[in-house]
Amino acid sequence: MQAQRSIRIVITGGTFDKHYDEISGVLTFKDTHLPEILKYVRCTLPIELELNQLIDSLEMHLSNRLQILESCRRAAESRIVITHGTDTMIETGRILGEAHLAKTIVLTGAMVPYSFTSSDAVFNLGCGIVAVQLLPDGVYIAMNGRVFPWNGVWKNREAGVFEEG
Amino acid sequence: MQAQRSIRIVITGGTFDKHYDEISGVLTFKDTHLPEILKYVRCTLPIELELNQLIDSLEMHLSNRLQILESCRRAAESRIVITHGTDTMIETGRILGEAHLAKTIVLTGAMVPYSFTSSDAVFNLGCGIVAVQLLPDGVYIAMNGRVFPWNGVWKNREAGVFEEG
Amino acid sequence: MQAQRSIRIVITGGTFDKHYDEISGVLTFKDTHLPEILKYVRCTLPIELELNQLIDSLEMHLSNRLQILESCRRAAESRIVITHGTDTMIETGRILGEAHLAKTIVLTGAMVPYSFTSSDAVFNLGCGIVAVQLLPDGVYIAMNGRVFPWNGVWKNREAGVFEEG
Amino acid sequence: MQAQRSIRIVITGGTFDKHYDEISGVLTFKDTHLPEILKYVRCTLPIELELNQLIDSLEMHLSNRLQILESCRRAAESRIVITHGTDTMIETGRILGEAHLAKTIVLTGAMVPYSFTSSDAVFNLGCGIVAVQLLPDGVYIAMNGRVFPWNGVWKNREAGVFEEG
Repeated sequence: MQAQRSIRIVITGGTFDKHYDEISGVLTFKDTHLPEILKYVRCTLPIELELNQLIDSLEMHLSNRLQILESCRRAAESRIVITHGTDTMIETGRILGEAHLAKTIVLTGAMVPYSFTSSDAVFNLGCGIVAVQLLPDGVYIAMNGRVFPWNGVWKNREAGVFEEG
Repeated sequence: MQAQRSIRIVITGGTFDKHYDEISGVLTFKDTHLPEILKYVRCTLPIELELNQLIDSLEMHLSNRLQILESCRRAAESRIVITHGTDTMIETGRILGEAHLAKTIVLTGAMVPYSFTSSDAVFNLGCGIVAVQLLPDGVYIAMNGRVFPWNGVWKNREAGVFEEG
Repeated sequence: MQAQRSIRIVITGGTFDKHYDEISGVLTFKDTHLPEILKYVRCTLPIELELNQLIDSLEMHLSNRLQILESCRRAAESRIVITHGTDTMIETGRILGEAHLAKTIVLTGAMVPYSFTSSDAVFNLGCGIVAVQLLPDGVYIAMNGRVFPWNGVWKNREAGVFEEG
Repeated sequence: MQAQRSIRIVITGGTFDKHYDEISGVLTFKDTHLPEILKYVRCTLPIELELNQLIDSLEMHLSNRLQILESCRRAAESRIVITHGTDTMIETGRILGEAHLAKTIVLTGAMVPYSFTSSDAVFNLGCGIVAVQLLPDGVYIAMNGRVFPWNGVWKNREAGVFEEG
């Protein structure tokens, strides 16, 4: 459990970082909340924060996912957490998994934006940050307090939770 | 990563569950916030919540720690998260560690009460919940985004963080 | 400044009470937050809470506004606060104003939903609750820390604020 | 209801601005939260913020209150809101009231610190900001959604509310 090695957090947006625009009345993106969160949760790990993109995962094209894959390849770190929209998180997981990188990669996100008072965002971030330190090389999804291999999970859209399968 | 087996969360209080009493103006205990937290973070693991005690860990006597040890022994679950005050968390960790239970036990807590807007409580809970699912039998401390064996950590009181050592 | 007489709060929805639906990812209505708010802000006034409707004011028809007018007429209380969407708040204000009820009516709302961490909702509620106790009969808008007669205000949609005019 | 004239907010601390020090585990003062609050509540009034002192009102001596009186005298503004600890708010109100300044002065505060998730601070601030715009010259207390003349109120310490009397 050596913490001297950095963990990279690759930020891609998703519901996690959604922002309420009071002029238009819609949920959109503005800045990422990751720097502020890491500070008040008192995370002492060396963290490299990478603002890769800020996009709703329903709007992702293959190019968006390849951009994430490229970041993972290039990263000096061998342990990477990716914040990602939950809707197509598994799709990105598949692309990363099939690349067989010699790294531990954990995707996480949120069902409720961080900027809401009852959000799962910070809990999920904690889950992801510990998962990436304890798991062997591979690609995983950390949601709902659980950790799944990318190819052993599906999103139950009706219930809004991730399940084994 | 089988989630069908329950995880037990043994609640002992600490700063995590401190409550501001507006009449007296002091921080004290009222109820635990764990049920409400587990609900909005959308944790789908089967969880057994045990309200063991609500105490500031600076006020713990050996009997308080033995009460926690007893809960761990008796528990049907082999994976236990304990919410605990940070001041003497390692002391309780030692008592549990030296009992050599065939269980994975993770202690976590908070430097800032959950009821404050910028609290590390929920992040730490996420860390502890994933740690307990991934670690082998033993006793650990999950704080500051990291996981330490109970006998490889100390609390740096000046900085308010846990460090290897 | 007699507080023995009740104040009626007529709830009509608007951004104030919007709720994030995590399954669909949209802002919608579920329950009103007013009971919970009045409790933790420690408001000791006798308050009659009326859940009149839960609607985005952009979707209001004349019938929705007449429903509010009817509530104001029927109310035993002579001091009424109305929580309302900001987009057509002045329109409802006009209908109430032109009815010349012998009552003090204050409309307020929020630019950011109460359920967000940085919302103006609770501040505006405080403004409205005091305004209705201090103003003579008439219809007013309380937004941005200010109080305007219904016929002396417009919504600056670009800036997202209410101004004299 | 002319808003072109500034309102002065004289900050004196109290529970409103208390801050949880995670190293010592006590509630103390650090910075005032007023600038941040006024921004996200979208208050468009011209406001002069004066950081007069940051003190628990139980620790106030006459000199602390006279310092507030002096600020009120010197102020260019004729409408002043004072954030103050609730314990001796009426005492300061008396000193200001007996000075018979040709100004409208409203004292407000909080029973629960702003930094807690369920605080009355922002609601009370809204109450005070509207009260100061609508009331004639004099000194008032705005708490619990109500407005009292300084000499017609007492703090019911058992219930933690202000009442007529």
